[in-house]
Amino acid sequence: MSAKVWLIGAGPGAADLITVRGMRLLQEADCVLYDALVQPEMLTYCPQAELIDVGKRCDLASTQQAFINKMLVDAARKHSRVVRLKGGDPLLFGRAQEELRALDVAGIAYEIVPGITAALAASADAGVSLTSRGLARNVLFATARVGHGEDPSDWVRPVLAADTSVLYMGVKQAAEVAAALLAGGMRADTPLLIVENASLPSKREWPLTLAELPQAASWQLQGPAILLIGEVYRAKLALAATPQAKLA
Amino acid sequence: MSAKVWLIGAGPGAADLITVRGMRLLQEADCVLYDALVQPEMLTYCPQAELIDVGKRCDLASTQQAFINKMLVDAARKHSRVVRLKGGDPLLFGRAQEELRALDVAGIAYEIVPGITAALAASADAGVSLTSRGLARNVLFATARVGHGEDPSDWVRPVLAADTSVLYMGVKQAAEVAAALLAGGMRADTPLLIVENASLPSKREWPLTLAELPQAASWQLQGPAILLIGEVYRAKLALAATPQAKLA
Repeated sequence: MSAKVWLIGAGPGAADLITVRGMRLLQEADCVLYDALVQPEMLTYCPQAELIDVGKRCDLASTQQAFINKMLVDAARKHSRVVRLKGGDPLLFGRAQEELRALDVAGIAYEIVPGITAALAASADAGVSLTSRGLARNVLFATARVGHGEDPSDWVRPVLAADTSVLYMGVKQAAEVAAALLAGGMRADTPLLIVENASLPSKREWPLTLAELPQAASWQLQGPAILLIGEVYRAKLALAATPQAKLA
Repeated sequence: MSAKVWLIGAGPGAADLITVRGMRLLQEADCVLYDALVQPEMLTYCPQAELIDVGKRCDLASTQQAFINKMLVDAARKHSRVVRLKGGDPLLFGRAQEELRALDVAGIAYEIVPGITAALAASADAGVSLTSRGLARNVLFATARVGHGEDPSDWVRPVLAADTSVLYMGVKQAAEVAAALLAGGMRADTPLLIVENASLPSKREWPLTLAELPQAASWQLQGPAILLIGEVYRAKLALAATPQAKLA
């Protein structure tokens, strides 16, 4: 049997923010392995397929990744059209390289279909361009790593060098993230924007300053949130009430 | 008349790499203003719409941007469902902020629909993840600015600080880009990947080192090309013949 695997980016959450190609491949799939970040509505495109919830989360242990790799290879040995559906884009914070290596080793053909990454969806929701003439000529996508054994300079230095930065995850550790950025020399009045559940009806946003960021650690966010940083968010900050008022 | 404008990312080129939402909005549009980077196949989604080619290019003069802003506002005064279709994602190197400001001033409602940016499509074509465990934890998207009156440190410093970088445009000025990166301290053996016409049947890629980059200035590239930089491309470099051989 000549099986093929399509590694598809589901996008930020809304079912109609997958690509047309991604939707069509879901409609033709025999088997779909999907992430914890994939919304249930997305799976209505593939009622014919065997669905496998691999429940992947960002703080995944490597043993769990090895198990996903094995399930993916097993599915490709059993079915001819297998979709591996991942939240966002597969090649940006998606651990795709490990799954692709497993497919290579098993001699299984694959193709990658890009997806809308959360930063682009959050920006569309907020109506603020990541780059802006005279204000921001480049943008960094990073994950904030705080805690035991982590060297914050790994991510703080590139964040400080970039005009706009987007931190995937990290809002739950807002106090540590703020401390690391302040220690690195970022100004306390730097404008930030937190966007939760980008692209979904439950989406929410809070403009705030770096000095106010530690407060966000106590907010009870329900879904995935990203932190956008840079001068392009200053206009939104000026319009906003206090972050606490906006949360209420 | 209560007109509305949708600012939609067309994605990297392939007609089926627009989002499902973007395709549906094109199918319902009265008028579509599109860029030079939008492929003709994309416009087959909207045979009913009045099509306006605003021919926008990256090195656009600001007077031309003012003219596009005016055409967009005029279209919204004449039609009820207007789509502004931009190559890639509207909020990443898309000059969207200027068009949104013009709509705000004119009191016209709008919504933004994200698109697949070229870096994600090029990565999918190449099969290399922008981030990779233990190798690349962050990625910078930038434009290389060389020539009179430009300070290369504006873009060289963030590129040097990031693990993976993607330079939009800049391949035509490969010699100046290479000189600026080498002067900034980037190693001559840093692996690079040039991807031309990402997502299209005519797509091509060349792995090369920073030391070899100046040669690319003389290549006759036919379409838009991006330059990807970082250790994640080393494996591809090892597999490749010389860049000249691959071009032939």
